[in-house]
Amino acid sequence: MTAEELASERRRLAEQALKLCLKRGEEIPLQKLAAEEGIARARVEQIFADDDGLFESLAELWMEPHIAEMEDVLASDLPPNRKMYEFFVRRFRISRERYRSDPAGFALLCELGAARFEKVRSFVDLADHYLSELIAQAQADGYFPGFEIDMALSLINQMVGNYTLPDALLYIDEKLSEEKLAHIIDSIFVGLSAENGGASGVNTLRIAT
Amino acid sequence: MTAEELASERRRLAEQALKLCLKRGEEIPLQKLAAEEGIARARVEQIFADDDGLFESLAELWMEPHIAEMEDVLASDLPPNRKMYEFFVRRFRISRERYRSDPAGFALLCELGAARFEKVRSFVDLADHYLSELIAQAQADGYFPGFEIDMALSLINQMVGNYTLPDALLYIDEKLSEEKLAHIIDSIFVGLSAENGGASGVNTLRIAT
Repeated sequence: MTAEELASERRRLAEQALKLCLKRGEEIPLQKLAAEEGIARARVEQIFADDDGLFESLAELWMEPHIAEMEDVLASDLPPNRKMYEFFVRRFRISRERYRSDPAGFALLCELGAARFEKVRSFVDLADHYLSELIAQAQADGYFPGFEIDMALSLINQMVGNYTLPDALLYIDEKLSEEKLAHIIDSIFVGLSAENGGASGVNTLRIAT
Repeated sequence: MTAEELASERRRLAEQALKLCLKRGEEIPLQKLAAEEGIARARVEQIFADDDGLFESLAELWMEPHIAEMEDVLASDLPPNRKMYEFFVRRFRISRERYRSDPAGFALLCELGAARFEKVRSFVDLADHYLSELIAQAQADGYFPGFEIDMALSLINQMVGNYTLPDALLYIDEKLSEEKLAHIIDSIFVGLSAENGGASGVNTLRIAT
């Protein structure tokens, strides 16, 4: 089998596994996938090695549209605030659409992802890498003055977390909206600065009694 | 038994239940509490009605320091940005201290709270009520221009969520800090406004290709 055939077979089987997983409401181990597809267990082990490997391929498939959107946004020539909004809103829309069309399946995938976080970490790292690029571009235009990129990255991730963590949809879908995300991004672009704005108190006389 | 005696007995038993729950790593049902305390089951049922009632008393006990801090901050004469920072940071410190001194016990209480969310909703509602007061005070000073209180409330809750949702400590404790919370509150006070800042795009020609 050529590398190309192998990749294409891996993808086909991962698609099947994802479909079965959403249909049955449970993770599909290699053995079951082999039985369902009528192929030898040794064959699927050659392709995925083990259940972890299968989950990884399944996660890659699931994240493909997210990655495509991030790359499109990065390659665009929008101004930094527009870019950052699109960077978050497009992935949020994909997740919301998936959640609403199959809440139980979506919850299951959240759960599987949390249980195998080391297998999804590379997607989190990739998103951080792209967001760091956006931050660097914005800083070149004068936004987020005074921050190291990592600090701005962490702050933005925390402020926008409800729109990136898929679990948020399970709990507060009806409280999340494009309009609110836009206000948050606007607030970040206007207000986020390493300067001490006074919230934490510069004057000990001001500690509450 | 007078109402006062009843309240004091309820508190004592809730304290015992909380202690047992943290020690054993599991919820303590009424029956077990009665056995542990060597009192009749009918007696604990008279006090708590059922397991839900016991959990509610336990949650009240657990949230008591949070509520005291919120009320202290509300009663202080700090400027609005200092007030809001203290409103969040004091509760965050309580939670972080609890989490770090007993991570497994803390995780268990998060889990129990999530499973009986209707019993903790009143604390969420109370925190929202107090935060709405802070927002109204800040708006009187010109902050968050143009927003209905409910909209500002929702946006601030979303941006600060990692410092109020106890579960966040289980996952990103090391990424949460007083310094970052202060930057977030500063950013909210400088930047949060109902005005369209442009992130969501005012010009269709600007949609990314």
